[in-house]
Amino acid sequence: MRIAFQGASGAYSEGAAQRAWPDAETVPCEHFEHVFAAVAGGRTSHGLLPIENSIGGSIHRNYDLLLEHELPIVAETELQVVHNLVALPGTDISRIRRVCSHPQALAQCEGFLRSLPDVEIVATYDTAGSARQIREEGLADTAAVASARAAEIFGLGILKAGIQDFRDNITRFLLIARDPQPLGAPDKTSVVFALPNAPGALFKALSVFALRDIDLTKLESRPMRGRPWEYLFYVDLGVGRDDVRCARALDHLAESARWVRTLGSYARWVDPAATVPAARQADASLS
Amino acid sequence: MRIAFQGASGAYSEGAAQRAWPDAETVPCEHFEHVFAAVAGGRTSHGLLPIENSIGGSIHRNYDLLLEHELPIVAETELQVVHNLVALPGTDISRIRRVCSHPQALAQCEGFLRSLPDVEIVATYDTAGSARQIREEGLADTAAVASARAAEIFGLGILKAGIQDFRDNITRFLLIARDPQPLGAPDKTSVVFALPNAPGALFKALSVFALRDIDLTKLESRPMRGRPWEYLFYVDLGVGRDDVRCARALDHLAESARWVRTLGSYARWVDPAATVPAARQADASLS
Repeated sequence: MRIAFQGASGAYSEGAAQRAWPDAETVPCEHFEHVFAAVAGGRTSHGLLPIENSIGGSIHRNYDLLLEHELPIVAETELQVVHNLVALPGTDISRIRRVCSHPQALAQCEGFLRSLPDVEIVATYDTAGSARQIREEGLADTAAVASARAAEIFGLGILKAGIQDFRDNITRFLLIARDPQPLGAPDKTSVVFALPNAPGALFKALSVFALRDIDLTKLESRPMRGRPWEYLFYVDLGVGRDDVRCARALDHLAESARWVRTLGSYARWVDPAATVPAARQADASLS
Repeated sequence: MRIAFQGASGAYSEGAAQRAWPDAETVPCEHFEHVFAAVAGGRTSHGLLPIENSIGGSIHRNYDLLLEHELPIVAETELQVVHNLVALPGTDISRIRRVCSHPQALAQCEGFLRSLPDVEIVATYDTAGSARQIREEGLADTAAVASARAAEIFGLGILKAGIQDFRDNITRFLLIARDPQPLGAPDKTSVVFALPNAPGALFKALSVFALRDIDLTKLESRPMRGRPWEYLFYVDLGVGRDDVRCARALDHLAESARWVRTLGSYARWVDPAATVPAARQADASLS
């Protein structure tokens, strides 16, 4: 098992892959598109994509890319995110003049970062990549927001650990593959659909699940490009594809939707270590 | 009328304000938070916030900030976005080694930017601010993605106009004020609500609108901070607050929702110049 992920070594995506599939080899990629390309081209068997963070919300780019490609979701996993302020070893926090990281990571540490006086906040494409840049360019006045593992890999010190504003900061990831065979017995299904511009269209669409007591654990809307103010809807259903209710609901949905596509059916993530977030997730139902 | 907006002079938000309210004075602010603070503190009478782009989707930070503040929405407007590659006058496009802009603007020009060989793409907080930086620092090898007006203000030339990947690139803006009196007769209402974790909760919530033939023109979900995988829902209703159906639907919603808040009731934007997008918007209904 070879898992492509976006970011440099020490990225949160790599940490999530290593925790869920400790025997797999991880392959860094610069952009999310490259993760899809690695899987599609056979360079890796799988790709791991952050799809949603419990503070920042959905990673919309990956919703868009799931639609542009034909790579099924075969598993999901979660990772508790712990952000750290990291810099060259021996740096005093009072000498820091710049903090760089991915905009989501910066936003998640906003409270802490505001407490640093006279510091410029710089958005980059990567948490671990920012740590690497500090090491490679020997930036003595710069810190990054990154994982402890990124600090370790690039020989940086941790100026302050756990700087995220909210303790319950969890990212959910989707595992994609060329082979649609899910890892584990599927009890969750991700679907995307487009609706006609008609009054009650979304209500009717959701009725196909509600009338069959199928839980909706997530609903996300995304714009349809080239059609201003029309939307696609991504839903996560608390039911596996093999459940007869799921097949019937999707047939029913197809009666009124412009189109429907199943992005994958897979086993719901259950955290083996901490049972609280997993239990919460099992409870969470919108519809 | 004084309208605060985020960005430097020449920002798209300023262009939208000047087009919709040509007699108003515009006041630049560095961050979205500062726009809210300017209005709350009485420094300006109004604030204009981008809320949604027809390609990139919602500007989630502003959904979050609308909830954190008590400043009602009193109007909406739209602006056709035309991105340009701008640089110091006389620069040849082949000399450009860096392109900087706001990540949304960069994403909207991805196809064009990929066609530039050996160019580093740099995310900044601001389109017009990137143009200003090129002027102030005399950066000969750098271009920005920004409006034609930003190029004019900061004395830059347009290397290439209209570089966005999709022609129908429209941003919708909300006007906030301390005074809840809407500008014009309200026929649209924005509401946010939280639901209990119960099967069918979202379906029931949407039924209060569908059963009264109230159109939903937008539905957006956002995470509830500190409650992983629970969500808030923002909806736009095609009905004014004074319509008895609206009052009844919101009373009905309050029966099952954890809480409900009206963010404002205002007149739907109708473009006086181009009727096509406005007509499309009037048609767009989800529920």
